[in-house]
Order: sequence, then structure tokens, then C-alpha cells
Amino acid sequence: MDAHRMLATAVDEARAGLAEGGIPIGAALYGPGGELLGRGHNRRVQDGDPSLHAETAAFRAAGRQRTYKGTTMVTTLSPCWYCSGLVRQFGISRVVIGEARTFHGGHDWLAEHGVEIVLLDDPECAAMMADFIEKHPDLWNEDIGA
Amino acid sequence: MDAHRMLATAVDEARAGLAEGGIPIGAALYGPGGELLGRGHNRRVQDGDPSLHAETAAFRAAGRQRTYKGTTMVTTLSPCWYCSGLVRQFGISRVVIGEARTFHGGHDWLAEHGVEIVLLDDPECAAMMADFIEKHPDLWNEDIGA
Repeated sequence: MDAHRMLATAVDEARAGLAEGGIPIGAALYGPGGELLGRGHNRRVQDGDPSLHAETAAFRAAGRQRTYKGTTMVTTLSPCWYCSGLVRQFGISRVVIGEARTFHGGHDWLAEHGVEIVLLDDPECAAMMADFIEKHPDLWNEDIGA
Repeated sequence: MDAHRMLATAVDEARAGLAEGGIPIGAALYGPGGELLGRGHNRRVQDGDPSLHAETAAFRAAGRQRTYKGTTMVTTLSPCWYCSGLVRQFGISRVVIGEARTFHGGHDWLAEHGVEIVLLDDPECAAMMADFIEKHPDLWNEDIGA
């Protein structure tokens, strides 16, 4: 499956999060054949749950998997260390990233450790995040432990 | 609060997980004054949830926090990359580790990045984990993406 089509799923999730009053970051996990395994968005505000970043929400939604070889995690925003650690530990093969302008997480580290990184630099993702950070700097800082 | 007393909480959690038929890894998050913020254990088997390692379960149970400065994460086992990333991203100040004999995660990396690491090398933690790995190698490998 094309990276841009995968990103569209993550963007849908980010928009859903924003509509719920949450932090607009979305993600999805795709299998080796392009099948959707799980999708989700940041749920800090909605559930009062700091452990559910978009990537971990998508990973959780995918349920137990014997292996992550060949899977792709797509996310609207460069993955933070928490989510980068998830990718490395479970051997997720590829990360498709909407943008890394508003936040530069651990994707260079992942590339060094053999993860394929596809950075799309999508203007819509960047605009949505920049707008949110401007309006809610406290929430954003809380979400990244800053 | 003394590191050994903190570890006792994590060991209680690990034992609770084992009694539930789960993977016996427990953790707790303590505040700067030694107050318990959250505790939890691995829930892969119990909830079918691969996102809840012991450390992320304790972090989740602590709820939203404005800062993690001065907090201590105590865990029965060396934190994997996923949980090490959590510690780094949120600026958890200290990690108390029961043992790193059966699994050596990312705690050296955390030390390089300024996290205080206290490795207790507790024989009970090591024995509980070694016994579990011997009896359930498939579950253990699934839990660390091996």
C-alpha cells in the first residue's frame, strides 16, 4: 500500500482526536500485505490517559501479534522517544511520518537501527499540529514531558 | 524512600501478574517525596493488550502529570526499549531495577542520557523471571518482539 494512502488513515485519526477536544495526532499499523492491523489517536485528554500516544493506541488496537516483521507504523507526527522505543523493541520494519517540522522525535535513531523511515513532510499535518501547539501549548508540553 | 522498599511494590505487582496467568513483571512510579503515584504489571495475557508492559501500566495508573521531574520508576526487570523510551521522553529522573540478568534492556542508554539507574540485582526477581521464561518461552519472546 502506498505511503500517502496509509497517511490518510492517520490523518483521519488525528482529525477525530481534534474533534473530541484532544491532541491531533493519529497513527495506524499496517501489515506486510498492506492490511490494516490497528488505528488510533492520542487519548491524553479524552481518557486522561498519558500512555496512549497515537502510535501506542494503534499498536494496542492491533492486539497481540506474533511478529511485527514487515509491518508499517504510519503517524502524522515524528514519533517521540516513547513511540520510537516501541518501534525498535517490537521490530516494526517501517515508519511513515506525516511531518517532523513541529516536533523532531527519534526517527533518526530508528533509521540508524535499521528501520525504514519515510518522511512525507505533509503540509496539512504540519499545519494542524502547528495550529494546535499555538492554541494549547500547555497540553502539548504535557504530552511530550517538556 | 528506599529503593528496596520501592522494589517490594514492583515485586508484589509481578506476583499478582503471575497469579493471573500473566507475565511476571511489575512496576511502580513514585513521586519526588516517595509517594506512590501508580503501580501495575504486564497485562499482555490478561487483557490481550501488548501495549501494557509493567512500566507503561504503572505510568498509565499514575494518570496525567504535569512533570516527572524527581520521579522514580521501579521495575522488577531491566526496561525494554519501549519502556526506556517512555522514561527518556517524559523525563523520569530515576529507574530502580530489580534485575538485568534475564534481560538487558535500555538502561545503559538511559544512564548515558542522565537518568539515574539503580540496579539491585535481586535474586528473587531473577529467579521468578528465569522460571517463567523457561516455562513459557513463546509468551516471553512475544512480549519483547523477539
